Amino acid sequence: MFLDTPLYRCEALEPDLGCAVSIKLETANPVRSFKARGTELVASRLAERGSRAVVCASAGNLGQALAWSGRGRGLDVTVVASRFATVAKLERIRALGARLELVDGDHERARERAAAIARRDGIRLVEDSLDIETCEGAATIGLELVDSAASFDTVLIALGGGALATGVGHVVKAMAPRAEVICVQPLGAPAMTRSWHRGRVVTTDSADTIADGVAGRCPIPAVLDDLLLVADDAVLVEEASIIAGMRMLLDHAGLVVEPSAALGVAALLEDRDRFAGRHVVTIVCGSNVDVDAYHRWTRAGPLPGS
Amino acid sequence: MFLDTPLYRCEALEPDLGCAVSIKLETANPVRSFKARGTELVASRLAERGSRAVVCASAGNLGQALAWSGRGRGLDVTVVASRFATVAKLERIRALGARLELVDGDHERARERAAAIARRDGIRLVEDSLDIETCEGAATIGLELVDSAASFDTVLIALGGGALATGVGHVVKAMAPRAEVICVQPLGAPAMTRSWHRGRVVTTDSADTIADGVAGRCPIPAVLDDLLLVADDAVLVEEASIIAGMRMLLDHAGLVVEPSAALGVAALLEDRDRFAGRHVVTIVCGSNVDVDAYHRWTRAGPLPGS
Repeated sequence: MFLDTPLYRCEALEPDLGCAVSIKLETANPVRSFKARGTELVASRLAERGSRAVVCASAGNLGQALAWSGRGRGLDVTVVASRFATVAKLERIRALGARLELVDGDHERARERAAAIARRDGIRLVEDSLDIETCEGAATIGLELVDSAASFDTVLIALGGGALATGVGHVVKAMAPRAEVICVQPLGAPAMTRSWHRGRVVTTDSADTIADGVAGRCPIPAVLDDLLLVADDAVLVEEASIIAGMRMLLDHAGLVVEPSAALGVAALLEDRDRFAGRHVVTIVCGSNVDVDAYHRWTRAGPLPGS
Repeated sequence: MFLDTPLYRCEALEPDLGCAVSIKLETANPVRSFKARGTELVASRLAERGSRAVVCASAGNLGQALAWSGRGRGLDVTVVASRFATVAKLERIRALGARLELVDGDHERARERAAAIARRDGIRLVEDSLDIETCEGAATIGLELVDSAASFDTVLIALGGGALATGVGHVVKAMAPRAEVICVQPLGAPAMTRSWHRGRVVTTDSADTIADGVAGRCPIPAVLDDLLLVADDAVLVEEASIIAGMRMLLDHAGLVVEPSAALGVAALLEDRDRFAGRHVVTIVCGSNVDVDAYHRWTRAGPLPGS
């Protein structure tokens, strides 16, 4: 259901981007993101051990995936999210039968609250990017990339908490070491990228980006250690490039993507010379958007804010 | 590349449709439609025999697929299309290196011209729906449906020339005979549906629908014979329902679809009682749209023409 996702060249994007582009599409599944690759592992292991409950903090995609994976296995799932999270994600979490608890404040507050619930109730806390299953889930994407017939020069990976980047990155570096692993984060939420460049955890006071799925402020030290081992670079992109990327993926690839999933194309747009003539894979990691915002971002006309 | 496409429940569509809905997604590949399942067979067999050229008529998707499949095998591909065909499809055919010949008039004129070119040049004519490879290609979708773990009650299939319906239908009727095979065609291009109901070929003088991929007027007798064997029903839907279907697939499933690919959802919208409580698979068969038209169709607000 969540594995063996499409991987294909998208030539219609290439004239504008100046390089060969392949899409690894993680949105054609019941939760419209890659996160269930990890939550299927979490939930099946919990169910094997007879656990009955689990909690996570989520910007929306992990919560949706955990709700989906837990529901079929009789687990009570609690998801803690910011009350400013993408409404469509919150609605899907509720529709999947999870208990949704909203916190005032951002994703970092939701992480604190989820940890408190886990301690109080004595239940498993799923910490995205830190917990091994979330990285193993992402690593299956890496396995599918290196197992494919087509070789590639670069893989562009959305960087938030770091699970996707470390999971995919470990596999690529082990099995296709000549391929570059490049992480992409919004300039408005640069904590992990700055941390990677300085080699130590850097936090930020705020995060300001439409890419809600990667809007963290407080990198987890152990995840940064992993990321330092596997990433060849980490770059920051402007909001206007993210929107342009979403628009290009709609217009030329027929793909609805959430802002985080356009980070790879945004990076290509911002540095055409760097990628010229290379074969780049970009992981389209999610498509959960609020419809009105999506229409606003992708409507023809000048880019918002430009 | 074109096989083993995603098949998944899409619960977000279900409250509005009143039944369980699974999507068979045929758009996440280099030509954004299912047609390369058949053209891969055509082109590989031609290449094995040392053929150098091939021609087809196409509303756009078959031509794109044949261009793609022929290019990698050194075949000269000629595609004949109506000059009123969807511009994005024509551009992709050219970009894939095929020779594109446009005719005044509709798809039926393009079919005549393609046949004339094949006779003149002594090269293979690919006749969609009539030629066995085009049906075998579609049949692989049927195999993937019946091989999936989830059982289903009904499969909704866009009906144009008939390859998709007969290919999928033969497999479903042979291997999952309790599942209903229902064909869906636009009220504005009803020739094959009327033919199915009367049991003999009925042609129409014109075709008037946004669903360019299924806008034929002259059913092929042998294809009708097949369709009479495998279809349980053939229904016609309004243009407004097709647009509503496209909008629902965008808003609730995050899928860009061309009008032909929304026919299944349109049928569900027009007859909720018939499908209530059933598990329906709809084949999302293509996503090649002109961007401006797509924005017009899916923009919030009252339905065009309503």
